Amino acid sequence: MKNFVLKGNICYSESRESIRLLPNSYLVCENGLCAGAFTELPEKYASLPLTDYGDRIIIPGLVDLHLHAPQFAFRGLGMDMELMEWLNTYTFPEESKYADLEYAERAYSLFARHMHLCATTRAAIFSSLHSPATELLMDKMEESGLVSFVGKVNMDRNSPDYYCEKSASSSLEATERWICNTMDKYKNTRPIITPRFIPTCSDELMRGLRTLVEKYNLPVQSHLSENYNEIALVQELCPDARFYGDAYNRFGLFGGDHPCIMAHCVHTGEEELDLIKKNGVFIAHSPLSNSNIASGVAPISKYLANDIHVGLASDVAGGETENMFYSIASSIRASKLRWRLRDQSVKPLSVDQAFYIATVGGGSFFGKVGSFEPGYEFDALVLDDSGLDHPQELSLRSRLDRCLYLADDRDIKAKYVRGHQLFDRT
Amino acid sequence: MKNFVLKGNICYSESRESIRLLPNSYLVCENGLCAGAFTELPEKYASLPLTDYGDRIIIPGLVDLHLHAPQFAFRGLGMDMELMEWLNTYTFPEESKYADLEYAERAYSLFARHMHLCATTRAAIFSSLHSPATELLMDKMEESGLVSFVGKVNMDRNSPDYYCEKSASSSLEATERWICNTMDKYKNTRPIITPRFIPTCSDELMRGLRTLVEKYNLPVQSHLSENYNEIALVQELCPDARFYGDAYNRFGLFGGDHPCIMAHCVHTGEEELDLIKKNGVFIAHSPLSNSNIASGVAPISKYLANDIHVGLASDVAGGETENMFYSIASSIRASKLRWRLRDQSVKPLSVDQAFYIATVGGGSFFGKVGSFEPGYEFDALVLDDSGLDHPQELSLRSRLDRCLYLADDRDIKAKYVRGHQLFDRT
Repeated sequence: MKNFVLKGNICYSESRESIRLLPNSYLVCENGLCAGAFTELPEKYASLPLTDYGDRIIIPGLVDLHLHAPQFAFRGLGMDMELMEWLNTYTFPEESKYADLEYAERAYSLFARHMHLCATTRAAIFSSLHSPATELLMDKMEESGLVSFVGKVNMDRNSPDYYCEKSASSSLEATERWICNTMDKYKNTRPIITPRFIPTCSDELMRGLRTLVEKYNLPVQSHLSENYNEIALVQELCPDARFYGDAYNRFGLFGGDHPCIMAHCVHTGEEELDLIKKNGVFIAHSPLSNSNIASGVAPISKYLANDIHVGLASDVAGGETENMFYSIASSIRASKLRWRLRDQSVKPLSVDQAFYIATVGGGSFFGKVGSFEPGYEFDALVLDDSGLDHPQELSLRSRLDRCLYLADDRDIKAKYVRGHQLFDRT
Repeated sequence: MKNFVLKGNICYSESRESIRLLPNSYLVCENGLCAGAFTELPEKYASLPLTDYGDRIIIPGLVDLHLHAPQFAFRGLGMDMELMEWLNTYTFPEESKYADLEYAERAYSLFARHMHLCATTRAAIFSSLHSPATELLMDKMEESGLVSFVGKVNMDRNSPDYYCEKSASSSLEATERWICNTMDKYKNTRPIITPRFIPTCSDELMRGLRTLVEKYNLPVQSHLSENYNEIALVQELCPDARFYGDAYNRFGLFGGDHPCIMAHCVHTGEEELDLIKKNGVFIAHSPLSNSNIASGVAPISKYLANDIHVGLASDVAGGETENMFYSIASSIRASKLRWRLRDQSVKPLSVDQAFYIATVGGGSFFGKVGSFEPGYEFDALVLDDSGLDHPQELSLRSRLDRCLYLADDRDIKAKYVRGHQLFDRT
């Protein structure tokens, strides 16, 4: 059923700086697309089936622009180190387990179930090195009902023996097989080229990945300028690169002619930022992770003011939870500490801006996604905030703000992706 | 039933720096006190009734050393301002509503229900100006089963007309009546002298409060060195005070001969810290609030290294949630951003330190509270972490860490305070 009307209290970003509020209004879905949000239901939609969600709140689905499926198993653990040590101590040992398909089956079943139930409707996901486990993850994500990009990770250097591809050529062969197996297999799940980051990818591997991007018309995701030690290592490994992002760009893996997500950009300088903007690269802002492993805080309001694409990300398991509401509140909180402790020239994020990056900001990577303007794909959450009890009358705006600070899975009563209802617990 | 044994996986702080782990062990309660945690049950306790919690985790109850009951109604709202503006715009209008006992009844019923269900077993609570509503709050807190200090707030200057006591003498009269009404009324609930903070309390009021502290042998709670504008205002109002804490100390309301909690201490200098230490003042660390209203981050590991008493606090509604697990994770996260953005001479908090301040650290304000060493009052939480699913084997230590980062009310299966079981949902 792809043509229908939902009734409720509708909220969505009408710009980076403001949220449109339509109390007691109508949201129309036609063929999986939003036909608009209306205070009065237009006559031409009067015959469509209508679900009345009463006093509940309807918002666009949230977009998680960066997370690691094989790290979900150790969420909440091992956050007593900075990035490079954290990768070697916790992350690579855990990710190496996904060579075992039985383990992957168990772990990715849990992961996909959480993805199904949480506020996320779209996600850009890192898998592990392993093609079979990555295909299994893609099967699970397809079943979850979300729309996602999933990337088999490439690493052929500076990685532990037990978790490193044998050569650039074997990595590329496995990657191409995986692409061919998966690129037309699913309705909602697509492969994405995923060099882990510059330190673990040889020049030969990067050149080969560029070839695959062109040959199969694929997007790219990776990590950028997250941590000082990582940035220093990239400078050492790539003495000719003018800055970290340039090390990707030299290989044609930094947007421009393909969609590209770079996670973090905590310590991005002006030159790097200019190239990000020029190439239309999406920044995946990961406030929980950047705090947990002490990387810092990216100056997001500055990026937004520069018309740079910014989406929000849980970065599981640098971030401990897939709950994107938690990331919304954390993005605001981290921006305030950055303002207080480091740099008052960059304003803290407003609730409106945080909501924007969690919806339209990241959604735009997937096309027209993250809004209820006409023509956007119909991804929606129905929130029941009655569990967030209060003694006083509250405006719709206040109720929305409380959800963004306090909601979790319990408060999501129904979830729609591309016009399909994933569940309805009302 | 005050003599019993619980069986499960027992975890508690054995020092500021380390957590003692006793898998599959026994925790003995005698007359409301902990008789110890044992890997083998001593013969003399063999006849006591035993509850076997199986693979669940048993930890001391968490202590919330600072929160505002009348602000619970607007948790998650209005965090777009710094302290002084925030008080005038959001806080004082909301708190003024508690002149209406019907509103207070509704609001405090919700508050006390949340206190009953959450991880907190002990709390130091600010009420509003109003004695009747404060007595009602104390009735509700007594019913909740928690042990708490509750303070009627004093404010007789620099406050809006609609939310200001008429004079020091009328404030003091009301306070003394409230003390007499409540000091012997409850088993678990006690009054605490609560000047809101220096800016809203005249010298005459402060002198009178000191008299009440002596006359009725009461503890004190207030706010200290939270925000730069607040500190500047105190300097202006008290030109003779050497520092903010000295402005309390000159009136004998800064510990020494009475127990005293000062919330925040974000911007405390060396002189102030020396006096805090000398007077045995407890610092209530409020990481969520200090981030949300952009105050900064207190250097807690420095305070701990200086043997200063530190407890953890939700500071509802500067903090958006009463869930103290959230405050534990936030205290670690905030300390990492302070380390990264401001001052690498102060180490980030470890999980062990954060657990310590949330249990023994704040618990010590209530006596021997927050540990399972023999002689401590028996406050305990039974956690079922099976909702935090994972595919791999995890050590008890890892399971505890995950709870501290991820748990909420749903994961608390039983709660004990002073040997009384508040609920058991197993």
